[in-house]
Amino acid sequence: MANVKVACLLGDGFEDSEFRVPFDELKKAGIEVEIIGTKAGQELKGYRGRETVKTDTAIDQARTDSFQALLIPGGHSPDHLRADRRFVDFVRSFDALKRPVAAVCHGPQLLMSAKLVKGRTLTAWPTVQGDLQLAGANVKDEPVVMDGNWITSRKPEDLQAFSEALIRTLR
Amino acid sequence: MANVKVACLLGDGFEDSEFRVPFDELKKAGIEVEIIGTKAGQELKGYRGRETVKTDTAIDQARTDSFQALLIPGGHSPDHLRADRRFVDFVRSFDALKRPVAAVCHGPQLLMSAKLVKGRTLTAWPTVQGDLQLAGANVKDEPVVMDGNWITSRKPEDLQAFSEALIRTLR
Repeated sequence: MANVKVACLLGDGFEDSEFRVPFDELKKAGIEVEIIGTKAGQELKGYRGRETVKTDTAIDQARTDSFQALLIPGGHSPDHLRADRRFVDFVRSFDALKRPVAAVCHGPQLLMSAKLVKGRTLTAWPTVQGDLQLAGANVKDEPVVMDGNWITSRKPEDLQAFSEALIRTLR
Repeated sequence: MANVKVACLLGDGFEDSEFRVPFDELKKAGIEVEIIGTKAGQELKGYRGRETVKTDTAIDQARTDSFQALLIPGGHSPDHLRADRRFVDFVRSFDALKRPVAAVCHGPQLLMSAKLVKGRTLTAWPTVQGDLQLAGANVKDEPVVMDGNWITSRKPEDLQAFSEALIRTLR
């Protein structure tokens, strides 16, 4: 898939496999993944200590319309990112394009901070599922939940199905 | 203050100072603090690597009416604890006694999972403030927010005022 580029929003303390599995699966499918962080060229560590990833692009330089999909891995990363208004704004602007948004585990915390979840159907890490319900979302406890342009999953065990759903949608 | 005992709910990855400062201040005021975790005698580590704490009591053995107040430090600990129904139930039962509940930073995530925040006035870590608003709480961005039996604070910088508010309330 030429010219298909996915934006991956990443901060320190991401869940290692929730970056690695979708990243590798997308690459295998010929899809480019651009890692967007606070700064370009910054080393980010997974909280399990298994992955170290260098960011490609600073959030200030990232343009939503350069990407065909958005990927948000979980772990502690989403709670760090949503403390920074620029990431929340990026998510809101990207979602407005109606292109695929794929978030796993704590990833939907960014959708919540962007005030996008009310009335939407999605899943997330079990503790975040409760927050989403209180925010007026329709929560399902299933490996992959699709609603419009959203693809959400709960945990590392869901990653294969999550990655496949994203790739299928991009095709 | 004899016979005044505070229950502290603690899990791995707590914010080191958010345990240490209130714990030491309560001790100095002559108030006993009992650390309640998943198991008794378990070593828990703060995520900054500065504090290691041994739990006193297993959640299964903890009775809400044995304590005059509840303390919930922040960090990653509250999100771990609220994944376990027993901690959420403990918080809900304790709150029903109308005794002081003091939560700082991510601590209010436990109040949220216990479905107690709608219509209440409180504060929390900035990213959690957004979740609380979506859940129907009245959020204030202040060092210490008191509402009925609740005492809430935002971050390590608030800890002195937070601890003093809890001790004053117990007096």
